[in-house]
Amino acid sequence: MQEILAIDAGGTGTRAVIADLDGHCRGFGTAGAGNPISAGFDGALDAYATATRMALGTQRETTDAQPYSSILIAMAGKSARLPMPRIASRLEAIGVSGPIELESDLLAMFCSGTPSPNGYALAAGTGAVAARVSDHRLDIVCGGTGWLLGDGGSGYWIGHQVVRAVVAALDGLGVQTALTAKLLSELDLTRGPERVEGRPAVLLKLIEALYEVRPVELSRFAPLAFDAHDDHVASAILAAAASELVAMLDAVQSPRVAGPLVLGGSVLLNGMLGEAGPLTALLNARTDDAEVRPVRDGVVGAVVLALLKAGVRVDKTIFERIEADVTRLRARTEPEGAQPA
Amino acid sequence: MQEILAIDAGGTGTRAVIADLDGHCRGFGTAGAGNPISAGFDGALDAYATATRMALGTQRETTDAQPYSSILIAMAGKSARLPMPRIASRLEAIGVSGPIELESDLLAMFCSGTPSPNGYALAAGTGAVAARVSDHRLDIVCGGTGWLLGDGGSGYWIGHQVVRAVVAALDGLGVQTALTAKLLSELDLTRGPERVEGRPAVLLKLIEALYEVRPVELSRFAPLAFDAHDDHVASAILAAAASELVAMLDAVQSPRVAGPLVLGGSVLLNGMLGEAGPLTALLNARTDDAEVRPVRDGVVGAVVLALLKAGVRVDKTIFERIEADVTRLRARTEPEGAQPA
Repeated sequence: MQEILAIDAGGTGTRAVIADLDGHCRGFGTAGAGNPISAGFDGALDAYATATRMALGTQRETTDAQPYSSILIAMAGKSARLPMPRIASRLEAIGVSGPIELESDLLAMFCSGTPSPNGYALAAGTGAVAARVSDHRLDIVCGGTGWLLGDGGSGYWIGHQVVRAVVAALDGLGVQTALTAKLLSELDLTRGPERVEGRPAVLLKLIEALYEVRPVELSRFAPLAFDAHDDHVASAILAAAASELVAMLDAVQSPRVAGPLVLGGSVLLNGMLGEAGPLTALLNARTDDAEVRPVRDGVVGAVVLALLKAGVRVDKTIFERIEADVTRLRARTEPEGAQPA
Repeated sequence: MQEILAIDAGGTGTRAVIADLDGHCRGFGTAGAGNPISAGFDGALDAYATATRMALGTQRETTDAQPYSSILIAMAGKSARLPMPRIASRLEAIGVSGPIELESDLLAMFCSGTPSPNGYALAAGTGAVAARVSDHRLDIVCGGTGWLLGDGGSGYWIGHQVVRAVVAALDGLGVQTALTAKLLSELDLTRGPERVEGRPAVLLKLIEALYEVRPVELSRFAPLAFDAHDDHVASAILAAAASELVAMLDAVQSPRVAGPLVLGGSVLLNGMLGEAGPLTALLNARTDDAEVRPVRDGVVGAVVLALLKAGVRVDKTIFERIEADVTRLRARTEPEGAQPA
């Protein structure tokens, strides 16, 4: 029986699926970070092997690699020069051989939401990026330029705005905000009357603590804004984030391409959507009536892309089978309410 | 004859002056970066020794340290735990002993502009900071929280806005700007029609180049905005920078304290002031009619502070003598039009 291996390699977690050419999935596995940028190349290889073995239901090394019709790895920055022979030999050691292809994790996310070859994707986790998809390929990509240069509306961007707002408030430059108490508590700092060199002592301690964090990790403070209901500063940050995300989406929109809008990433799913979510009203106000589909990650889409590479035409029936199988298999594996990667 | 040693230790250059208690300056010396944060502690010590030897007019080590009435070192972050005995022994090795005190470079900058014990200072170089000065002490300080957390209107802030604007323009998110051609040329990149993964190839090269720069060094791109006359994006960045700087100044203003406004730092002096400078109109619109004094650096003020520590009352006559002497001595030492540190 011909089978494919699909690996969705994310910055915080990796997922692998074994499926046949009708989209029946027989194995699902998970592992830690699988992006070479966050995990290093060896760490990424380990994650692919761990998740794949778990999907295969075997823990042993083998010298008998079975041929697969297609091996697809979805990851960010797929254009990075990865030594493909090392990926191949690592997978062969656990019994998997076949043609390996890399695809963008953003495309896999899109394909997790729809069998349509055309449409739009918007993802916001630590970073933020939008894409127009035509014929199952990324046609135009906008955003995703990283914490320093872009990614407006991302988790980093929101977290950065949160810490800047608190620093400004303590520095006498910005208005008072409920975010101050939340951030100080998160960092185990206490506000007091002491001043050092013309500044509140707690501000100097806060600055010291924040410069010890890698900038991109400021995204961990984004949830403080999601939780600060009724705070004007937090609301303004989230409204601005939503505008940034919609601007990204507008930049990739084209009248030539119609199709569903697939949404993903922890910031979108956990903070920006929902009935009162800051992005919801903006998306509802858009004139097109395209279907909007939030997805948890790119694993279903990685299977779709692997099947496409194997020459399979993925129709609605096959797509829904993959979706249902992956949902069923991951329910056995992953704890309830696990975070999307 | 009793003398003082004043050292103005900046992030890009160090200046030292030997003066008597009437403010007659007999020696002036310069060296490289003298801030322990940018130069490291050993580098900073080397800079103090080099500049001091040059001011003394001697190049030899000595075991006969002469007593000075006051040794004052002005630097950013004076609260950093510096091992004072090592500073003392390094200076003794070149013939200088006496009570050493550290003072804020911002206070020294203020004292470079006026003999008044009260007033305001606004500095914008790589960073930006404002202070209210009372009785020759920093009363309230605002800003100076660094590239990641604050410093609105600083060289970093402007440079960061420049690169973000160019990335957004190339990414289809922002309006076209003359800054794009300037930045690409600065980085030896050429714009072409090639696209990679749904993006302009030059954008990917630009992103790669910019992430190789230490974030704080993005300040080197601030001058691109100063030079982009008539470009709306550049004008908007500079207008926003000026607003940020005035907000910092407003935050330290108090009706209780009247006095001159001293301005310093390369961004203020080279980019924001002048007849059509973006800050000029905003400063003119302020209701108080305080004298505005731009200064090149904090070396005159370091002498003023050293004399105050030695118990001298620095009146207008002494102040103007220091100013004239330093101007005369540095003209012999520094090339015409040297950049302020």
